[in-house]
Amino acid sequence: MELKMTLPLPHGGRLVDRVVTNPRAGKKMAASADAVYDIKPTLYNGMPVRNVYREIMSICYGFFSPCEGSMTKAELERILKERRLLSNWVFPYPMLFDISEEDLKKLKVQEGDRLLLRLKGQPFAVLDIEEIYQIDPKDLATRTFGTPQANPEVVKVAFDNKHPGYNIYSSYNRCVLAGKYTIVNEPKMRSPFDRFWYPPAKARAEFQRRGWNTVIAHQTRNVPHVGHEALMRNAAYIGDIKPCDGIIVNAIVGAKRIGDYPDETIVEAHEMVNIAGYVKPSRHLVTILLWDMRYGNPLESLLHAVARQNMGVSFHMWGRDHAALGPYYDTYAAQILWENGVPSFGFDKPPYAVDYGLLMRPQNMAEFWYCPKCTEVTYSENCNHDKERQRFSGSFIRSLLAEGVFPPAVIMRPEVYKTVVKWWKILGYPFNNKKYLAERENELEIDLADMKL
Amino acid sequence: MELKMTLPLPHGGRLVDRVVTNPRAGKKMAASADAVYDIKPTLYNGMPVRNVYREIMSICYGFFSPCEGSMTKAELERILKERRLLSNWVFPYPMLFDISEEDLKKLKVQEGDRLLLRLKGQPFAVLDIEEIYQIDPKDLATRTFGTPQANPEVVKVAFDNKHPGYNIYSSYNRCVLAGKYTIVNEPKMRSPFDRFWYPPAKARAEFQRRGWNTVIAHQTRNVPHVGHEALMRNAAYIGDIKPCDGIIVNAIVGAKRIGDYPDETIVEAHEMVNIAGYVKPSRHLVTILLWDMRYGNPLESLLHAVARQNMGVSFHMWGRDHAALGPYYDTYAAQILWENGVPSFGFDKPPYAVDYGLLMRPQNMAEFWYCPKCTEVTYSENCNHDKERQRFSGSFIRSLLAEGVFPPAVIMRPEVYKTVVKWWKILGYPFNNKKYLAERENELEIDLADMKL
Repeated sequence: MELKMTLPLPHGGRLVDRVVTNPRAGKKMAASADAVYDIKPTLYNGMPVRNVYREIMSICYGFFSPCEGSMTKAELERILKERRLLSNWVFPYPMLFDISEEDLKKLKVQEGDRLLLRLKGQPFAVLDIEEIYQIDPKDLATRTFGTPQANPEVVKVAFDNKHPGYNIYSSYNRCVLAGKYTIVNEPKMRSPFDRFWYPPAKARAEFQRRGWNTVIAHQTRNVPHVGHEALMRNAAYIGDIKPCDGIIVNAIVGAKRIGDYPDETIVEAHEMVNIAGYVKPSRHLVTILLWDMRYGNPLESLLHAVARQNMGVSFHMWGRDHAALGPYYDTYAAQILWENGVPSFGFDKPPYAVDYGLLMRPQNMAEFWYCPKCTEVTYSENCNHDKERQRFSGSFIRSLLAEGVFPPAVIMRPEVYKTVVKWWKILGYPFNNKKYLAERENELEIDLADMKL
Repeated sequence: MELKMTLPLPHGGRLVDRVVTNPRAGKKMAASADAVYDIKPTLYNGMPVRNVYREIMSICYGFFSPCEGSMTKAELERILKERRLLSNWVFPYPMLFDISEEDLKKLKVQEGDRLLLRLKGQPFAVLDIEEIYQIDPKDLATRTFGTPQANPEVVKVAFDNKHPGYNIYSSYNRCVLAGKYTIVNEPKMRSPFDRFWYPPAKARAEFQRRGWNTVIAHQTRNVPHVGHEALMRNAAYIGDIKPCDGIIVNAIVGAKRIGDYPDETIVEAHEMVNIAGYVKPSRHLVTILLWDMRYGNPLESLLHAVARQNMGVSFHMWGRDHAALGPYYDTYAAQILWENGVPSFGFDKPPYAVDYGLLMRPQNMAEFWYCPKCTEVTYSENCNHDKERQRFSGSFIRSLLAEGVFPPAVIMRPEVYKTVVKWWKILGYPFNNKKYLAERENELEIDLADMKL
């Protein structure tokens, strides 16, 4: 039998690192570009729903290893059919640099050219164009998420414009520039995101510094209520010969929906769980992933697995409705994928058991609820008090907050609630509104140094 | 990577089954014996501390597979030196049929003879004598448990007659009859132990009937307080791709000490945890092992592992002071063994990693305490509230019970407490006293049919 576990290898064997940290080298590279393009957000109904800069960040810093850039047509086809890169490694989503026909005409770039991408008025990255091709955004959106006909194991309802991920893909521009990205102007993460920024190489170094051999990851896009906390802590009793050494929360930071919690609130509320001592700070680390949620449940779980295995994570908690929204996917689609595979997506076995798959192991969890008979937060596979149990409802808690009601401690830790209030005061609203979303799109999460070419 | 786990193979590859269930065949075998011997308890200071019948039961029903009987001198030496049977399989303790010199003289048996063992006046088992040899019981006791000089990794204080396991071995008779046991008169387990009697073959069938692929075991010799319950439930979040399907409690039933809870109370109190719905009955099974506790911490953990792997268990929770008593072993000796091995006991790697070792994996757990700040039972690796935490103390709870005080629900479930009271009324005392121990030794846990030879 194998002896003790250590941190898993990166997906694909090595971490992608496409960030030029030497300013002179970055400047030279930027100056060598054939054309310049200012990155624009993807809009849906006039609202920013995605900014490709987050994909460029996640790719160049290695979160999405072994993916190195915007995909060629052949690679896109392979992704949509088999959820694999041309190198065979499992990968769930298209990564595309899309541009309008008008912009392409203006740029006059061709295959073989280097395009300088500007952000917030500054040089940010270059894209070395390998291929220029056309896509049909609606078709892209449909094929990305699947259909009830083609993917009956997990897709229950055809995707449409009530699904925010569908809206992202169907709002792509029709032209794609394929090629590798290189960040030429090392960005500075803005506060408060800076202290949660653990790109894979840094995350692995931090895990090693802390002596962690086994780490479990938790996806979040929410302020933690006590049920989330129970899920996080209890899932971590999986491990090797003892419970996991470390627990990371990896918050998705990016374009969000109106009514969600602001990202600032989310990351600091999770951090408060360790500051307030509900999980020891030495065992708990809050981190972020720059990504505009696609709400793709099983597919999103694969993206999360790629990013987190690259960070050095050994286990991942999958619950019900993982990164899901609406009736499109089966409630347990992510667990189905990680228990049995989804053949129509290219997985006749779970992703940790297929060739070129992931090394990260699943921890498929059922539910937690508060039970007054058990007098505690209990697990659905334990508590047999069907009449007494009280489910945690995120919308109920949000409605309490909206009314300014201090939620009971059995629902939300008082320190976590105070963090919500802190950002409510700073931002002027407890939840995302149009103003916040517009400001966030303007500021993004990074600042770029003035780079005169 | 391996796909989904299934129940582990028995230790040594197949379950020992040395119970003759056909009454006619059993009678013939009994009648073929060369001599008859009435099993006597091992006494220390006049009190029964062990009855070899429990070893015969555990061996013949396969709990101790691949061990099949009383050990030869060569096998005993191998056990004491390397904790292995002559067949190489890991095994922690001597299994010996000891008899006094006077009794041996009276019996006039020789190597090659068959000895009929009687219990409660009835034929019970036969021992086919392969070897007759002498032991020095004090030396046996010392070498069984180890010494600070020879086993510095885990033995802190030399064993002496304040240790009940030491007293068991040092009270053995000087003559040993080695050979295989066969039960010839199938016993009937007495109430309430009968419904907890799951010999390995039956346990495996029950696990399969319930659809369990992963099972975690918990050792107990106590009535469960809320801390035990938390340990049991939380350890079970280990598993394969999801938390363990099943949780078994395996209570040690046998000779006990004055002041311990009666075995009847212990098994029914654990059962009450599922009846009262704190763990679903479909996920929880209380079982027993007939064994007179040796309190051998790391060595006892090996015996527990052998018995429970044979039952089909995949994981075992090891806590601090596992089956320990007094200052003899390191508090974490069992965890040391299951994390790194104990070379002086013959384990340069943990027992699941050595050749001919166990397949069962460890779940080494830290502590649980009640924390009023966390407002729940919390894990020592999570809760950072050093000032607020309140440890569970078994002796404190026993002192409450002795005073007739209903313990608070944060310490003991009311239903569990009522079970203690139920047996208190039946037996007339909440804890073992001399009268109870004498009656139990008289009745034992089984009845035997009248078998006229």
